[in-house]
Amino acid sequence: MIKVGNSSVIFKNVYLKSSSAIGGKKELVGPLGSFLDYAYTDAHCNENTWEEAEIALIDKALKVALEKCSLTLHDIDLMILGDLNNQLVISHYLMRKYDIPFFGIYSACATCVQSIMTGAMLIDGGFGKYIMCGSSSHFATSERQFRYPTEYGGQKPTSLTSTATGAGIGILSNMPSFIKITAGTIGKIIDAGLTDANDLGRAMAPAAAETLFEHLHDFQTTIDDYDLIVTGDLSTYGSKIFKEMLKGLGIDLKDKHVDGGLLLYNVEKQKVHAGGSGSGCISMVLYGYLVKRMYEERFKRILVIATGALMNPIMICQGETIPCIAHAIVLERSN
Amino acid sequence: MIKVGNSSVIFKNVYLKSSSAIGGKKELVGPLGSFLDYAYTDAHCNENTWEEAEIALIDKALKVALEKCSLTLHDIDLMILGDLNNQLVISHYLMRKYDIPFFGIYSACATCVQSIMTGAMLIDGGFGKYIMCGSSSHFATSERQFRYPTEYGGQKPTSLTSTATGAGIGILSNMPSFIKITAGTIGKIIDAGLTDANDLGRAMAPAAAETLFEHLHDFQTTIDDYDLIVTGDLSTYGSKIFKEMLKGLGIDLKDKHVDGGLLLYNVEKQKVHAGGSGSGCISMVLYGYLVKRMYEERFKRILVIATGALMNPIMICQGETIPCIAHAIVLERSN
Repeated sequence: MIKVGNSSVIFKNVYLKSSSAIGGKKELVGPLGSFLDYAYTDAHCNENTWEEAEIALIDKALKVALEKCSLTLHDIDLMILGDLNNQLVISHYLMRKYDIPFFGIYSACATCVQSIMTGAMLIDGGFGKYIMCGSSSHFATSERQFRYPTEYGGQKPTSLTSTATGAGIGILSNMPSFIKITAGTIGKIIDAGLTDANDLGRAMAPAAAETLFEHLHDFQTTIDDYDLIVTGDLSTYGSKIFKEMLKGLGIDLKDKHVDGGLLLYNVEKQKVHAGGSGSGCISMVLYGYLVKRMYEERFKRILVIATGALMNPIMICQGETIPCIAHAIVLERSN
Repeated sequence: MIKVGNSSVIFKNVYLKSSSAIGGKKELVGPLGSFLDYAYTDAHCNENTWEEAEIALIDKALKVALEKCSLTLHDIDLMILGDLNNQLVISHYLMRKYDIPFFGIYSACATCVQSIMTGAMLIDGGFGKYIMCGSSSHFATSERQFRYPTEYGGQKPTSLTSTATGAGIGILSNMPSFIKITAGTIGKIIDAGLTDANDLGRAMAPAAAETLFEHLHDFQTTIDDYDLIVTGDLSTYGSKIFKEMLKGLGIDLKDKHVDGGLLLYNVEKQKVHAGGSGSGCISMVLYGYLVKRMYEERFKRILVIATGALMNPIMICQGETIPCIAHAIVLERSN
């Protein structure tokens, strides 16, 4: 790999060998339902607890990704996973089943892209042939942990996003395949001073704008160099601010920008308030929709900017503001 | 870097440029007190909340590590930090102050070594000149989050470890210095079926034994090749099982094994029950005591095996067992 500018890196030889996207019922009936590899129509994924349900999602994603490329777990040199649960218990309780070197990572809803970035850096650095990356989230584990148990039936403000139920896995390799991971920009933590944990889209927008600005600066590229700029998950509220901030920086996104959380659901009809979110959200959008569209040759080169709000309920109760991060990667068709 | 065996890696060119260890009052009056770079005698570290106190610890560690080698934050290509707090808020709220690319990682009390391992892999892969790694813990943030608020005054079983108040930072570089990080073994998650969250030492012992066994196998080395085998943190209970398990595998630790949590405190006198623990514990022992002893040429080559218990209180309440991990690195004097 080659470091570029302050925060970016060019990967010489990193490919997406295989990927998978697993969702829940709401994701299945949403606009991207047909791009999922599998969806559980039971919210418990046929398990007894919400945690076991989320483990089932990422476990299924892992198996499907391996099946698609005819690899087995023995071929995988390292797993890099994360989720929203305290102490990453979904990733950890999944991985106790498997005998594979493991790294746990966390950057909230940006975890998916941090896992790809780390995996790509290690592949390009010469560690191993196959690295598996991924992340998951579940509506019910997140609601209970970050807000209230669903049984409480609390009212929700319109700025709130809805945590997606789903998981995504990517298998990175140094051997050529159809999609190449060519570059990335590592995020810095930006705290814009916002305090409303029910409006994380707006809190994360400055981090997304900063990372995009840094990315374009580091590589001396423009918006025109990409077929699509995908954020995840800025919500309807944050997406608006994101565009405005970039305009202020002299960058016109034109019609290139979409937000993963707004693609995944029919926002109004499916009552997800300001959009979808969660570390499974951009995972499903990337490994389900975007990758498949690249295979269909709809997109040649895309930039995925995953955003994460890095607070917890204790810090919010203490009156703290919300620090956020955004990591970006570039995916290109290799032919 | 070169991958070795199933889980290990040899680093070609990774050095520990600088390091720092910051503790609290209990750590200062313990056996390793004189090896700390600084200690806060106020449990709140002159801040208002326990979280701010823990942030002060890691912030001080960061500053001292930079000062020691006359670098500034602008020289640092990437920060890799983690802590025990939900959503890694200590690392995240620290890093919002600084304008540096950031990765958050988590493996409980093994976080320190996961951060070094990841940093070393990235340095050796060609990303950047200086990467900062580290981890922290604070008795009070951990007690409240994993057990009870200290005000509750709950009784503690003798198998319980006491979360260390402290932090450690290492600055890795590709430019030669006195201590070289030569190799590492990435852990796999091992769940031995234990359920007692008040006895994590015993729960983690099998993961430590597995990683040591794998390490010796991958490199075809023996215990005799190291001056010291340091675990952290297995407690008095876990250390005993660790030795017994290895004996069963035909490996005699002789007098080479010490546990970081047992070095940091005078266990009986300081009433830390079965020993010290927490992601700041092995950080302080490594960056304070071990590194300084290497500079004094007491040790030429040491193996540090950091262990982490990867559960959270929800999983324990659901009757779940405790998955654990251990990551190992080799430090050598380069002359």
